[in-house]
Amino acid sequence: MDVERIRKETPGTRHAVHLNAAGAALLARPVLDTVVSHLELEAEIGGYEAADRAHDRLEEGYAVVARLVGAAPDEIAFTDSATRSWDQAFYSIPFRPGDRILTTTSEYSSNALAYVQAARRHRVSVEVVPDDEHGTIDLEALARSLGRGGVRLVSLNHVPTHDGLINPVAEVGALARAHDALFLLDACQSAGQLPLDVDALNVDLLSATGRKFLRGPRGTGFLYVRRSVMDRLDPPVVDLHSADLTGPDAFAFRPDARRFETWERSVANQLGLARAVEYALDLGLDAIAGRVLALAARLRAQLAELPGVTVHDRGVRKSGIVTFTHAEHGAEALVPKLTAAGIVTRLSEQTYRYDEGAAPRARVRASVHYYNTEQEVDRAVHALAALL
Amino acid sequence: MDVERIRKETPGTRHAVHLNAAGAALLARPVLDTVVSHLELEAEIGGYEAADRAHDRLEEGYAVVARLVGAAPDEIAFTDSATRSWDQAFYSIPFRPGDRILTTTSEYSSNALAYVQAARRHRVSVEVVPDDEHGTIDLEALARSLGRGGVRLVSLNHVPTHDGLINPVAEVGALARAHDALFLLDACQSAGQLPLDVDALNVDLLSATGRKFLRGPRGTGFLYVRRSVMDRLDPPVVDLHSADLTGPDAFAFRPDARRFETWERSVANQLGLARAVEYALDLGLDAIAGRVLALAARLRAQLAELPGVTVHDRGVRKSGIVTFTHAEHGAEALVPKLTAAGIVTRLSEQTYRYDEGAAPRARVRASVHYYNTEQEVDRAVHALAALL
Repeated sequence: MDVERIRKETPGTRHAVHLNAAGAALLARPVLDTVVSHLELEAEIGGYEAADRAHDRLEEGYAVVARLVGAAPDEIAFTDSATRSWDQAFYSIPFRPGDRILTTTSEYSSNALAYVQAARRHRVSVEVVPDDEHGTIDLEALARSLGRGGVRLVSLNHVPTHDGLINPVAEVGALARAHDALFLLDACQSAGQLPLDVDALNVDLLSATGRKFLRGPRGTGFLYVRRSVMDRLDPPVVDLHSADLTGPDAFAFRPDARRFETWERSVANQLGLARAVEYALDLGLDAIAGRVLALAARLRAQLAELPGVTVHDRGVRKSGIVTFTHAEHGAEALVPKLTAAGIVTRLSEQTYRYDEGAAPRARVRASVHYYNTEQEVDRAVHALAALL
Repeated sequence: MDVERIRKETPGTRHAVHLNAAGAALLARPVLDTVVSHLELEAEIGGYEAADRAHDRLEEGYAVVARLVGAAPDEIAFTDSATRSWDQAFYSIPFRPGDRILTTTSEYSSNALAYVQAARRHRVSVEVVPDDEHGTIDLEALARSLGRGGVRLVSLNHVPTHDGLINPVAEVGALARAHDALFLLDACQSAGQLPLDVDALNVDLLSATGRKFLRGPRGTGFLYVRRSVMDRLDPPVVDLHSADLTGPDAFAFRPDARRFETWERSVANQLGLARAVEYALDLGLDAIAGRVLALAARLRAQLAELPGVTVHDRGVRKSGIVTFTHAEHGAEALVPKLTAAGIVTRLSEQTYRYDEGAAPRARVRASVHYYNTEQEVDRAVHALAALL
């Protein structure tokens, strides 16, 4: 990987050590240019007229995203966020009273909120599969839970936002499939960081955002829906893009995954997301994952040697997200001090998690990307050491 | 109104006679600059870090939009589209079997689809109030229908997308209020074209888009929710922005209208929408409406004099949207020919309407804005005449 070229194409690498890819990663110049040039075209000729000109590129975007996840273009929907992607999948599941939802201790709090809402609305039960000794979902416990029957949905994060875990998705998916449960994967933090293959992972539904490791614009996301489960889902909303009225009392959803879209969108941002995915595919997801995970491992190893610092990441296989605390200096105080020293991290506040006991809830989150360098990692640790 | 200055600030006026404000209006340079400069800041320092810097301007945006509709800032939610705004309102209404929804013949087809979905899901009935002799909703028929009881919702477009009608919203709202029905106004085509005052219009819920007469970026919208109806609604989706988990089985929505938002958004586009609303407020909505309606009247009058041309706009009070057909030349053929002659209109295809008999379904739609000139209107008519 030509890191020097990549950094030249990434304006944000000039100013600070940016370790917040898990929040929103730095845009690459080609992605920014794609968005801005379309906005300028809209101003020159009009928004609808510019979309007409971009028609073929918009269509190609579905194929590009499909390639990222190993799907077909008609299994892809574009949305305005990871949340919308996930919601369009989750809220389309026709739950019946007594259905069971299985998730993990590391589930994202917005998803946990939606489970509570579903429990109230549909009288389903939400069950948290316990962890094994590494803090990863216990696959034997999952298999036993599935074996008790009635599981409509297995739903979890690929890479949780609050620690360095990578969930064993392929194994979870195989178990879900064996028990005829839907498997919804929240790939918000893994898309653009790790290779994704919906068949190898046994995933039925996969939601993702543009702004994180894919380095796309804010306000973008996509959803993958396996063709074979499409008709088992009831999209929560309908508009003239997702369906046709077939009479005064009847409508029919379009046959492809765009039934999960609504018509209006930022065309500029959608083009930008497709460009960002292309950029990642050109670099190769295996190469990206290799570099991200190595940089994170370097960071963890150095942090662990600093007196008073505790790294909190769990699991055997760890992601590009590194979380830590210091025995005396609170994370709330450390993050702005690091920023002032040119090291951009983020305060991770776990407002809610199923593992209530997990301490501490406020951590420094430093998330690396392939555009970071080994020297930047070292500088970040030195800057932190100087603050302690 | 200083039309010359406005046109200098509107790059799209240089190239063609753009008569598609009802699709997506031409961006003003200050709006484009707002969006692009925030995108560039995101590329320079990161998406989260740029949002931190924009915090105060984002907050001010709620006050700006509130001013546009005569509401309080805590009654405003930002969304990514008119459809999302409308959906977040409509799908939050806790319908009970037997509830009645009243709408008009001119309702937007996406909304009509949602009514069908609601009828199926909740066993509500959807009833279309007939028109009076001008093609406007018959207020006496509306009063009689409300008087029969059981109306949960009155829902209609302020300015329908398919003809020049302006619905008598204040009168409809007063009747809805007198019968304790919710009143949802789709202001997609009126926001930025006509003055809006939610109290004067007796509106409980108002949805709008950025891209049309407000001249905001594509992929933006907002929703107004009257404070007094907030707790009668059950937002259809939930995330960590709209609600807090208060325990493993309980959550509470935030007190303000942002409970209808989700967290992630294009910050650049949201800033751009706020800037566009400011731009409209600076010009004054009365002045804007006066100019738009006068230009449209000029266009209608000239079109009516062309042999074979029929103007289809109905209602006593007409909007900036002008629709017409020619006896021999189909709209599908006329629109691209007009474009080639430098006159940008749009083909309006009414895929579905409650007034099934309304003919013809394919029309040329020419929608003017205040940045158009009288000379442009005349040129458009001359160009059309040359094609016939």
